[in-house]
Amino acid sequence: MNIARYAGPDGVVNFGVIDNLGDEGIPSADTTITQIDAHPFGSIDPVGKPIPFAEVRLLAPMLPSKIIAVGRNYAAHAAEMGNEVPSEPMIFLKPSTSVIGPGDRIDLPPQSEHVEHEAELAIVIGRLCREVPSNRVNDVIFGYTCANDVSARDLQKTDGQWGRAKGFDTFCPIGPWITTGIDASDLGIQCRVNGELKQDSRTSLMVHGIPELVTWISNVMTLLPGDVIITGTPAGVGPLNDGDRVSVTIEGIGTLTNRVALRD
Amino acid sequence: MNIARYAGPDGVVNFGVIDNLGDEGIPSADTTITQIDAHPFGSIDPVGKPIPFAEVRLLAPMLPSKIIAVGRNYAAHAAEMGNEVPSEPMIFLKPSTSVIGPGDRIDLPPQSEHVEHEAELAIVIGRLCREVPSNRVNDVIFGYTCANDVSARDLQKTDGQWGRAKGFDTFCPIGPWITTGIDASDLGIQCRVNGELKQDSRTSLMVHGIPELVTWISNVMTLLPGDVIITGTPAGVGPLNDGDRVSVTIEGIGTLTNRVALRD
Repeated sequence: MNIARYAGPDGVVNFGVIDNLGDEGIPSADTTITQIDAHPFGSIDPVGKPIPFAEVRLLAPMLPSKIIAVGRNYAAHAAEMGNEVPSEPMIFLKPSTSVIGPGDRIDLPPQSEHVEHEAELAIVIGRLCREVPSNRVNDVIFGYTCANDVSARDLQKTDGQWGRAKGFDTFCPIGPWITTGIDASDLGIQCRVNGELKQDSRTSLMVHGIPELVTWISNVMTLLPGDVIITGTPAGVGPLNDGDRVSVTIEGIGTLTNRVALRD
Repeated sequence: MNIARYAGPDGVVNFGVIDNLGDEGIPSADTTITQIDAHPFGSIDPVGKPIPFAEVRLLAPMLPSKIIAVGRNYAAHAAEMGNEVPSEPMIFLKPSTSVIGPGDRIDLPPQSEHVEHEAELAIVIGRLCREVPSNRVNDVIFGYTCANDVSARDLQKTDGQWGRAKGFDTFCPIGPWITTGIDASDLGIQCRVNGELKQDSRTSLMVHGIPELVTWISNVMTLLPGDVIITGTPAGVGPLNDGDRVSVTIEGIGTLTNRVALRD
């Protein structure tokens, strides 16, 4: 099932279920969205009739209380950055204010001269949980979406801690929707800039896989419904410049596209 | 003015104004609390009559959407850790799930063998803001409280990023209340463990002061009402062990005390 958060023709924001999504997660003229009651973390109850997908504006599919990001979780990316793969997950946080949705603009801040894309699979948590055993991880995962862990690479290198380099407003695009009921352990993941393929890998190449990450992180901090874990980026990261269009595509989910511009 | 968040005798949680607080922020038998309407970020309107302070249970005075922490912001602490003072603020985030209130228990997690206290002045933001000029900083600050940036020092040294070492549940005690209308640029700040003085400094010794921090951080990320900036710890950090009682005292605000125990 694909669940979006959207503004309807009347401007009202709701969650809804997408039906008749085309192959490879590309909406067609037949695609519809049906509002659901309240939030999607319990029973998913349709409200009203399906409306054409083209009549809604997608928003970030979740407003997480926290975003936990995993560093150096693909060996080829760690190598391209000149780093070792850590024996345990390396985690940092991105602020909720960095979240934007599909179609929203990534702002290049004046503090950085070198901002890069990082395509990542995002896990969306569905239940309040802590100390989740690895065989119960699927019970606490609501679904998956695409994320772009936008990073000011120059500041990341000089700052030591990454709170600034990865924490700017607009530096966490997520979307286009949340896909539930899929096995995300071996999905293709790509990033394109202006249509050109930059990152191309599979989630099976994560150093620390989804069950391990959820278990490990939930032994540190309580996870809340809607919290997002972004699971690291594969090799091929590169610059984003004013006017670029950057897309993250994950097999079985869809494509998250954002424009890039200088901060006003 | 001192504003607390508390559970009343009926268990209902509200914000309230504390009156007749004793010298040095120590409540007496004359101290009262008066509920205010809704939240304190607009007009502060009393609701009902003052009740004895002893009849309420204080909670964390704010549930922030994010906690921005500043590293190495006192030269003597940077030196004791063997670090240079950074030319710009070094920021990282603590998760909202790490927040606890006065009297709550700091849990020592099994992953660490060396957890330390870090007494810090906390700035509580009162208005949605970004790119705040330094001469407008006071307009966006709601008030100040005490914080303890509890840190798993062993993991902090080995992990690289501090998301785990400083992100455990219970690792961000704040309180006991928020004090508004004070000049926080030169306040005494102390930390005591089991009554013994461990940290003793003044906020005037911050490398990057309050106006600079708020301006600098708000040029990275939008700040929301209730967001908390913890401004770095002075020298004298040291271990917390099972059974300890740790207190952070800031002149003109009060004392935040927490017990320490092994995680159940």
